Amino acid sequence: MTIVKQILADKGREVWSVRPDDSIYAALEVMAEKNIGAVLVMEGNRLVGIFSERDYARKIILFGKASQDTPVKEAMTRRVIAVRADHDVERCMALMTEKRIRHLPVMREDDVVGVISIGDVVKAMISEQANKIQHLEDYITTGHPEVAKLTEKVDERHEM
Amino acid sequence: MTIVKQILADKGREVWSVRPDDSIYAALEVMAEKNIGAVLVMEGNRLVGIFSERDYARKIILFGKASQDTPVKEAMTRRVIAVRADHDVERCMALMTEKRIRHLPVMREDDVVGVISIGDVVKAMISEQANKIQHLEDYITTGHPEVAKLTEKVDERHEM
Repeated sequence: MTIVKQILADKGREVWSVRPDDSIYAALEVMAEKNIGAVLVMEGNRLVGIFSERDYARKIILFGKASQDTPVKEAMTRRVIAVRADHDVERCMALMTEKRIRHLPVMREDDVVGVISIGDVVKAMISEQANKIQHLEDYITTGHPEVAKLTEKVDERHEM
Repeated sequence: MTIVKQILADKGREVWSVRPDDSIYAALEVMAEKNIGAVLVMEGNRLVGIFSERDYARKIILFGKASQDTPVKEAMTRRVIAVRADHDVERCMALMTEKRIRHLPVMREDDVVGVISIGDVVKAMISEQANKIQHLEDYITTGHPEVAKLTEKVDERHEM
């Protein structure tokens, strides 16, 4: 079972963030520059929210806020759903599907140690399942212990 | 191999769209109301673009456009990447990963017959691989033909 720590080892632990009083415009610039769908909102080392393309699409315009002037803290999601580095990918996938979210910060106690996206989780899950299928196919085609033992017995008798 | 047609049979063929001259605000309202991440832009029956949360996050503010007044045709993606109903999920997944997109209209010649999202593709792929693993595990634990044949032979000899 792939765990979050292994995904972070592959993709790196880089975390992109803005401060709560930064403008929404500044957050969008970071997201465009890094080609990501969400940024963390950090007060020093403390995670206080997350701001995603969906927050922007859903909240800003419908509440009539101008993004040049609006601080990100007014549009961010404050209840951040996070995981630990020892959580497995299936749990992450279930969380993302159930909560309809695409980004999960990875926490060690109160510290953020990385972020994983739905793309990372999908990639890990597909490669894990492909490995399992390969393993089972090898097991069948190269013969598992039971087949080998029976084949030997039959061969012995043929030689008799 | 799951194909697009089967995904549409599961999720339905509903397509949400706006017209090119509708405002971005109207497109965002449809997306919020239907809880979706992108809408098609249709001129009558003709697909002329797609407008996603990402288009909104990347283009509007950085070009300084006001969404109440801006028609969706100025911010939509015009080169729409689409699939046919007989394409398989692996092809869809590869397209989404390679092009970094999350929505694929499904076309029959020039007509849109549905839309699939990265969530639909992931769900189909996971259930397909889980089925394959189950099938291989059954094959091993209930004995495949080779094991059955050998077991019979051995049993015969034991009875002799």
